[in-house]
Amino acid sequence: MFMRVDQLQAELPAPKRKDPNAAAALQELLGGKYGEMSTLGNYMFQSFNFRSKSKLKPFYSLVAAITAEELGHVELVSNGVAMLNNGPDNDGDKGDGGDISGAPFEDMKDIRLAAAFLSNGGGVTPVSSNGASWNNDFITTTGNVVVDLLHNFHLECGARLHKLRVYETLTDPTGREVCGYLLVRGSVHAHAYALALKKITGVELDKFLPTPNINLDKIPECQKYLQEGSHRRLYTFSPSDYKEMAGIWGNGEVALPGDPPGELTVVEGMPDGGKIHQLTGIPSAFTPDYAPEEMFEIAAKLTKKAR
Amino acid sequence: MFMRVDQLQAELPAPKRKDPNAAAALQELLGGKYGEMSTLGNYMFQSFNFRSKSKLKPFYSLVAAITAEELGHVELVSNGVAMLNNGPDNDGDKGDGGDISGAPFEDMKDIRLAAAFLSNGGGVTPVSSNGASWNNDFITTTGNVVVDLLHNFHLECGARLHKLRVYETLTDPTGREVCGYLLVRGSVHAHAYALALKKITGVELDKFLPTPNINLDKIPECQKYLQEGSHRRLYTFSPSDYKEMAGIWGNGEVALPGDPPGELTVVEGMPDGGKIHQLTGIPSAFTPDYAPEEMFEIAAKLTKKAR
Amino acid sequence: MFMRVDQLQAELPAPKRKDPNAAAALQELLGGKYGEMSTLGNYMFQSFNFRSKSKLKPFYSLVAAITAEELGHVELVSNGVAMLNNGPDNDGDKGDGGDISGAPFEDMKDIRLAAAFLSNGGGVTPVSSNGASWNNDFITTTGNVVVDLLHNFHLECGARLHKLRVYETLTDPTGREVCGYLLVRGSVHAHAYALALKKITGVELDKFLPTPNINLDKIPECQKYLQEGSHRRLYTFSPSDYKEMAGIWGNGEVALPGDPPGELTVVEGMPDGGKIHQLTGIPSAFTPDYAPEEMFEIAAKLTKKAR
Amino acid sequence: MFMRVDQLQAELPAPKRKDPNAAAALQELLGGKYGEMSTLGNYMFQSFNFRSKSKLKPFYSLVAAITAEELGHVELVSNGVAMLNNGPDNDGDKGDGGDISGAPFEDMKDIRLAAAFLSNGGGVTPVSSNGASWNNDFITTTGNVVVDLLHNFHLECGARLHKLRVYETLTDPTGREVCGYLLVRGSVHAHAYALALKKITGVELDKFLPTPNINLDKIPECQKYLQEGSHRRLYTFSPSDYKEMAGIWGNGEVALPGDPPGELTVVEGMPDGGKIHQLTGIPSAFTPDYAPEEMFEIAAKLTKKAR
Amino acid sequence: MFMRVDQLQAELPAPKRKDPNAAAALQELLGGKYGEMSTLGNYMFQSFNFRSKSKLKPFYSLVAAITAEELGHVELVSNGVAMLNNGPDNDGDKGDGGDISGAPFEDMKDIRLAAAFLSNGGGVTPVSSNGASWNNDFITTTGNVVVDLLHNFHLECGARLHKLRVYETLTDPTGREVCGYLLVRGSVHAHAYALALKKITGVELDKFLPTPNINLDKIPECQKYLQEGSHRRLYTFSPSDYKEMAGIWGNGEVALPGDPPGELTVVEGMPDGGKIHQLTGIPSAFTPDYAPEEMFEIAAKLTKKAR
Amino acid sequence: MFMRVDQLQAELPAPKRKDPNAAAALQELLGGKYGEMSTLGNYMFQSFNFRSKSKLKPFYSLVAAITAEELGHVELVSNGVAMLNNGPDNDGDKGDGGDISGAPFEDMKDIRLAAAFLSNGGGVTPVSSNGASWNNDFITTTGNVVVDLLHNFHLECGARLHKLRVYETLTDPTGREVCGYLLVRGSVHAHAYALALKKITGVELDKFLPTPNINLDKIPECQKYLQEGSHRRLYTFSPSDYKEMAGIWGNGEVALPGDPPGELTVVEGMPDGGKIHQLTGIPSAFTPDYAPEEMFEIAAKLTKKAR
Repeated sequence: MFMRVDQLQAELPAPKRKDPNAAAALQELLGGKYGEMSTLGNYMFQSFNFRSKSKLKPFYSLVAAITAEELGHVELVSNGVAMLNNGPDNDGDKGDGGDISGAPFEDMKDIRLAAAFLSNGGGVTPVSSNGASWNNDFITTTGNVVVDLLHNFHLECGARLHKLRVYETLTDPTGREVCGYLLVRGSVHAHAYALALKKITGVELDKFLPTPNINLDKIPECQKYLQEGSHRRLYTFSPSDYKEMAGIWGNGEVALPGDPPGELTVVEGMPDGGKIHQLTGIPSAFTPDYAPEEMFEIAAKLTKKAR
Repeated sequence: MFMRVDQLQAELPAPKRKDPNAAAALQELLGGKYGEMSTLGNYMFQSFNFRSKSKLKPFYSLVAAITAEELGHVELVSNGVAMLNNGPDNDGDKGDGGDISGAPFEDMKDIRLAAAFLSNGGGVTPVSSNGASWNNDFITTTGNVVVDLLHNFHLECGARLHKLRVYETLTDPTGREVCGYLLVRGSVHAHAYALALKKITGVELDKFLPTPNINLDKIPECQKYLQEGSHRRLYTFSPSDYKEMAGIWGNGEVALPGDPPGELTVVEGMPDGGKIHQLTGIPSAFTPDYAPEEMFEIAAKLTKKAR
Repeated sequence: MFMRVDQLQAELPAPKRKDPNAAAALQELLGGKYGEMSTLGNYMFQSFNFRSKSKLKPFYSLVAAITAEELGHVELVSNGVAMLNNGPDNDGDKGDGGDISGAPFEDMKDIRLAAAFLSNGGGVTPVSSNGASWNNDFITTTGNVVVDLLHNFHLECGARLHKLRVYETLTDPTGREVCGYLLVRGSVHAHAYALALKKITGVELDKFLPTPNINLDKIPECQKYLQEGSHRRLYTFSPSDYKEMAGIWGNGEVALPGDPPGELTVVEGMPDGGKIHQLTGIPSAFTPDYAPEEMFEIAAKLTKKAR
Repeated sequence: MFMRVDQLQAELPAPKRKDPNAAAALQELLGGKYGEMSTLGNYMFQSFNFRSKSKLKPFYSLVAAITAEELGHVELVSNGVAMLNNGPDNDGDKGDGGDISGAPFEDMKDIRLAAAFLSNGGGVTPVSSNGASWNNDFITTTGNVVVDLLHNFHLECGARLHKLRVYETLTDPTGREVCGYLLVRGSVHAHAYALALKKITGVELDKFLPTPNINLDKIPECQKYLQEGSHRRLYTFSPSDYKEMAGIWGNGEVALPGDPPGELTVVEGMPDGGKIHQLTGIPSAFTPDYAPEEMFEIAAKLTKKAR
Repeated sequence: MFMRVDQLQAELPAPKRKDPNAAAALQELLGGKYGEMSTLGNYMFQSFNFRSKSKLKPFYSLVAAITAEELGHVELVSNGVAMLNNGPDNDGDKGDGGDISGAPFEDMKDIRLAAAFLSNGGGVTPVSSNGASWNNDFITTTGNVVVDLLHNFHLECGARLHKLRVYETLTDPTGREVCGYLLVRGSVHAHAYALALKKITGVELDKFLPTPNINLDKIPECQKYLQEGSHRRLYTFSPSDYKEMAGIWGNGEVALPGDPPGELTVVEGMPDGGKIHQLTGIPSAFTPDYAPEEMFEIAAKLTKKAR
Repeated sequence: MFMRVDQLQAELPAPKRKDPNAAAALQELLGGKYGEMSTLGNYMFQSFNFRSKSKLKPFYSLVAAITAEELGHVELVSNGVAMLNNGPDNDGDKGDGGDISGAPFEDMKDIRLAAAFLSNGGGVTPVSSNGASWNNDFITTTGNVVVDLLHNFHLECGARLHKLRVYETLTDPTGREVCGYLLVRGSVHAHAYALALKKITGVELDKFLPTPNINLDKIPECQKYLQEGSHRRLYTFSPSDYKEMAGIWGNGEVALPGDPPGELTVVEGMPDGGKIHQLTGIPSAFTPDYAPEEMFEIAAKLTKKAR
């Protein structure tokens, strides 16, 4: 089972301007082969398919707990995409959409992924930066623990490269923060899978890191997270399960040489997180509706009754 | 953010025999157009894209909380599929895989979705009963609240039909229990979206239910859940958020006429749930490995250290 | 069986300029999830799969007749797309294509869907505004009448939203006229499916309309059609079949409150329609050929002989 | 514009038994690369995209009229598939679905394309014999008349081969009749495109036929149609348009050597056709509903009012 | 550039019987995510995209040369699939196809991938064991040497697992020989990528092998190849290029512990290979034609003239 | 089996500037329906599936040898795409990637196929100009020789049209040279398939050429190849096989009327070819790595040892 908390894993700054092509670039980190839908999909189905769970608790717990974190990554990138499509906060959802006969969204026909406006009203969907759908071809779940973990290790290294490249195309603080946070957490996952494989095979895969060979101290947006030690922590993302992964993450293992030093630790529960951004509706784009005031009133009454 | 609890939403009986074609039928409820990946994907991305969240709290909360429940539905169906592919519990993961030169899995080349064995070792993936991948085409997230809720209402009615048909093909208790549980919970979601739309539009969509026009008292596997009142409950699936949906679900609304009577209530948190099944590995199929004993020993040591 | 008449359902004004990105936006109304290929595909296959046709004549007739209208909608949007790609009428198809070595179509490498030129020479194909193919995932045909009709109702509401958004991106009269006409006719279909479901279930789904909550009086391009009462008419699109749908559309039912008042009526046959636009060939783009004069002469002779 | 007539192009005999795998084989002729959705899709979009229509009337008319015939072919194969999935006529749609708890459709989990039952209740959808969706990749519409016609000629030859092979797998009269009829009509289309290209290029492509090199006199199910001269006729499938194709089909051209001799003629309008089969509903499969009697009564009343 | 030699990389025994489902299982090794189309596609495009080729000669050469070997693997599996679909050699291509009206291929409608007969006449295409198309989603080519090599290492380990599982389903000698040969050569590639990464990173990835943890001495069909030392050889598959990979493969490195001992060596050119099987045509299936004798005569004359 | 030679089939001039949208246009000739992946895929699988090879040697040899040439075409277009994405040669791969925090690739978020940078670092993949994946739907391999050859003839004519249109969008010499070379060689293949079909059927398909009806003397980039007689030559692309195709290509047949006159000849082996371009790495884009110097040193040592 899964529970949900109405917060993001990291606080995202508001975008400075509406930038649908930046949003489209960020989509690569959601629906691309090395995006968060892929890390989520791989670990989630591997955890469902995991054999001999009780005999392999530390390994099962690792994959199961990271699955929960990846849900939050999917949420974080998704919020980033929608925010970049939507632009800065405004008073949009007041009044009705007014006169729409003057082609108020003419510029939307030239954005790279026009369906993001036409179909989703600026919302996010699980597609890549080229608009191609995420799908089952991106999932490896063989049931063989070593093959699956090796796949995961490669996936996180590849994902790190994609995050770096997307970061290099973005000027807006929202998208850059998404990348900065995910670079730190993705590096943790690469490290964790390396250690898991080292325990089983004896091969020092952690020496392979960082891949690509750039330390996170080069990315300003990562520093806050490194300083608070995020790179040394794995959360169980669970009230009481998955603690056994401490046999892999922790247990004397330490941070990678290029990162601030310290021991690796498993933290029960989840990080503090940040607020979910209000996406202001734009009545002329029919979000949440052309004339939403009545709906707002109804909602206000229902909210009162719910207390 | 999301958290994970190492339990299923319902207790599943062990399968009586290995039945890959039954597993393939059950896949329709996972990766088909009206499967749980679709309900999850629709509600999850709608919740990310929701506009004017604070002004529309009851509606936002409803979609956001059901998202969390759908994650557990994906998990439940997935466990069912993997169990049916794997068969009854056994001592499979002892010893090594032995001599594999005698075509030990000859029968696997004739199962409907052979890749489920060849690629996934009996594991589940997000594909339909025909083996087609789940994908973004199954997602509607327009950002218009009425259109999205109407889509969801139609989706749950369609899903109910698919659950009924899959149920009609299954003899094994595992798959039937999956269907029984999901029929009850899916009916709740259809009811909830009907009420949400009724609040906004005044149209009594709840009178549309049940669709298809068969009451759940016809399905033996549903009775346990109806008797405990599951059809009258919506869980927040959250430690402390999403309570505002009580303005829609509750607030004087009652169970549908064909179901055991009573008021609708929002329950904070999640249901009790059942244990996740041990999927015993089959070394000759390389799950969790050809000769897993050493890995088991390593895991045992790591588990000790984790305490 | 189907017959064809060499006319469009509505007269389209010639485009003022070549605008491939506007054409690409309009593609959403052809090959997108809520485009005309989807309404066509859904109703056509539902009509093929309809059970107990003679016992359910009014419902069968409704779906069967609207199928024929949707063929004309596919044709109308397709003509609009090709016209916007082609631009205003000209003398293009005279002479040969001349010297093509100076990159005469350099600007075509920057249009959003470059294959529309490279592969289709400015022609239309069943893809979305993002260039993704229309496909079977967009079809729901369960054989259950209520589920199918509910799907159709939701589909038309969603399609109306998509038409509105595409309209908001277009400045050219060709594309705007396509949207204006389809908004009126699509609203008719939504209304018709609402009434069909009301007859079966008693639920007043027509009160749900219009969705989104904007009346067509806000769209200048709709006025002509509203004034001639198009919003109150369903055509049988047949020489002598499908009249039984008058039990649903008509039979005392009237126009929606936001539209010009009056009774709903079934009209045998089809509307007057408008001429199909000549798409002038561009020999340098090899349409209809590099040096088409000889082909024109042959065709002229064959036309004579055909008389 | 298109009109619809409530008849099939050919009379289909009722199936002798329910045979979902035969239905699945027949799907190749609907949704496969060389199926009727492809011939329809190619000619329909080519006719929309046709350049210099008035200067190339005979060629435009040919493609436009055959489009209308292909719609009927899609309908014919679709009816065949649904009939084979449904089985012989019966009293199925009486009463309600009864007790469904005994796995009444257990055998459906072993049919080749299980989703045809689970999702479509035995209905047809535009997929191939392997269940893969028809899509835009199957469409060629370049706007160059010679390339498009050559494509079409190859398409009809390939389609003829596929029809022959599907025929060779079927024992049921329904499916065999579909193949027999389509073999005759598809051969006409191959012949027509050969003649069109001969007019333009002078190359005697008609000597290429039949491809594959088997005459239709070898197929018993073709004889009825050959004897009535169907192989020498092209219908305009229009009340008054498309007659100019007589410059190509006719005009002194005669039947192919292996077929009954005679002149080629264009026939205005459409063939006589046969009745559309009643697909009896199966309430236990929720078609048209679980307990359809009330719906039948409502429909009967509405039908009366429609008169 | 590439050259072709009319031989297979290994001699395949003739199949004992026609077995389309075995052929379908073998398809996983062609068009599945971990099949030969994927190894080919990854290495081919990586070699095209390789940066700084002259500065990274040993690594570039390794990827470029293995690409050429993978072409032969695609050919080998493809021949195996077609042979299993076709069955033992026979006199099939004599005479014409005779009377085809008695459903001579009725059994073909029940094979798992019916399109393999209906569309391909028993031929092979790049699809998986579930009939899903190979596609670009299976390709990773980032341009980062470490990420690409790590991907390749993981790909070969996963491919080895898939080969083992397919092998376990096959009883026919043709398919088993394909697996036996590919297991040896695929293990070589895994070893080679491990060594390449070891040179760059110092991490002893070769100790990771074999993955899965089963030695090839357990597979009878591998012994012939192990005894001739195939596991210690990399071919340049080139008249004179790619020798620089000897810096990685060779250079003191030796066979893996579980394989027959010895030094690794680069061999210029290609292995001896075996004959390509005659696939006897079946005129009743229209391969190579319904009545091929005339074509055979024409071909015989043309062959004479070619000398 | 296949061998590889480290050269391109034609010498490509360096690009004058980085032009990702030109690269994207050129992708149509790689991964589009009428691109080189399609010609390769069709001929390769047809050659694998060829029936009665020894009895049909000239036809088999033709398809088999052209397959090998198409591999080189895939390589040529791929190099062109990567070169256009990369731009002129430079000193990029020296030093490390430096400070990447200033959005050094901001412009990459606006290119048409952003994933080409984000995922492939400017590399090529088998997708169309719209970014859609090449796939099995583009392959026809029926096993019927006439149908397959006719398909191939149509494919080459369609491919010629696509090459012409892509050429018309390009100003850069690299892309134009790719088109010029492929136009000559593709015209050879169209001619060869026309002759093969003429031998079998007697129909003078060569008179159909050129299609589209423009001679290559209109394309400056073709002249060099026409003058050296490339249009009259088919290479065996093999050390000693496939000579029998001389019965089709040669044997008294001559060049097409619009091309420089002369006899058709089969040439054993392959053309001289041109050098493969160095793609200079860009460390800030992580190609071949962020700080590649150490890797370069390692490679230099390994190269020495390889001698």
